[in-house]
Amino acid sequence: MSKGFTLWFTGLSGAGKSTLSLPVAEKLKSLGHKVEILDGDIVRTNLSKGLTFSKEDRDINIRRIGFVSNLLSRNGVVAISAAISPYREVRDEVRKMITNDGAGFVEVFVHCPLDVLAERDVKGLYKKAIAGEIKNFTGVSDPYEAPVNPEVVVDSSKEKVDESVDKIIARLKELGYLN
Amino acid sequence: MSKGFTLWFTGLSGAGKSTLSLPVAEKLKSLGHKVEILDGDIVRTNLSKGLTFSKEDRDINIRRIGFVSNLLSRNGVVAISAAISPYREVRDEVRKMITNDGAGFVEVFVHCPLDVLAERDVKGLYKKAIAGEIKNFTGVSDPYEAPVNPEVVVDSSKEKVDESVDKIIARLKELGYLN
Repeated sequence: MSKGFTLWFTGLSGAGKSTLSLPVAEKLKSLGHKVEILDGDIVRTNLSKGLTFSKEDRDINIRRIGFVSNLLSRNGVVAISAAISPYREVRDEVRKMITNDGAGFVEVFVHCPLDVLAERDVKGLYKKAIAGEIKNFTGVSDPYEAPVNPEVVVDSSKEKVDESVDKIIARLKELGYLN
Repeated sequence: MSKGFTLWFTGLSGAGKSTLSLPVAEKLKSLGHKVEILDGDIVRTNLSKGLTFSKEDRDINIRRIGFVSNLLSRNGVVAISAAISPYREVRDEVRKMITNDGAGFVEVFVHCPLDVLAERDVKGLYKKAIAGEIKNFTGVSDPYEAPVNPEVVVDSSKEKVDESVDKIIARLKELGYLN
């Protein structure tokens, strides 16, 4: 059986975390891996209903995703997290927990400049956040701490989805995680 | 690879759910299964901190355990839940979700008469609950709905731990879940 690992996407809302997670998951399944995607919305519904977007509650949310990712990864499953996860310290705490339990942790920083996101604004959230109608909005009225040494960096303002997917898969191969 | 399933213990506090889950997990591991125990306390710490013991919050807690058990079971892992899970409807909802996703669900009713539990009272909780010092205490001041058709019934007031473990393992074998 293949070694389990957690593929941890982090980045601003709309940067492309979920968009990238789907084709990456398909590619990994086609290689014979077992894969589960823990999307931000899925998790908010099933594990974290009632939590706010305060720093404390965001940290709890991320720790829960980390707890579940660890349960999956240490049993040989690829857990893909696609939540914003704005705080570096909690991401590093999750990395430590998972690698201590013998699975892998691969952090993918999905970068996209704020002005590009505000212009795309697929869900209309940036407009509202900039107008002050949504509070605690990461990147606008709430901090985002970019990773210092992520295993992969992709930039959705410059790369096509396919290019970013290929980059992630190539890096996983390089790190020895692929079947 | 073996088929994943969820082994769902239900019963009053102190009846023996956690006590039985440990040797059962060891036995399953010795047969080559991957096993994760989702003990009531582990889950309260890692997934459900802040939830109360109201019916609504208990249901949320059980749904979260069910969600995680499903993620594990559908990837071939044996998920063992050892939370009180007092309400029949939510247990059945979890059963449905897990079997719909193609994994197995085996409900183990850990029975023990209330007077025996109150006499044992290992953690001193029954005394406090009967005195009214703990509210919403299942079996004393909060309901417990026993399963109607559990796959296994054990009675910790009459059976030794080994006997109950053997009974559970024999039933799993009969149901075709064992390697």
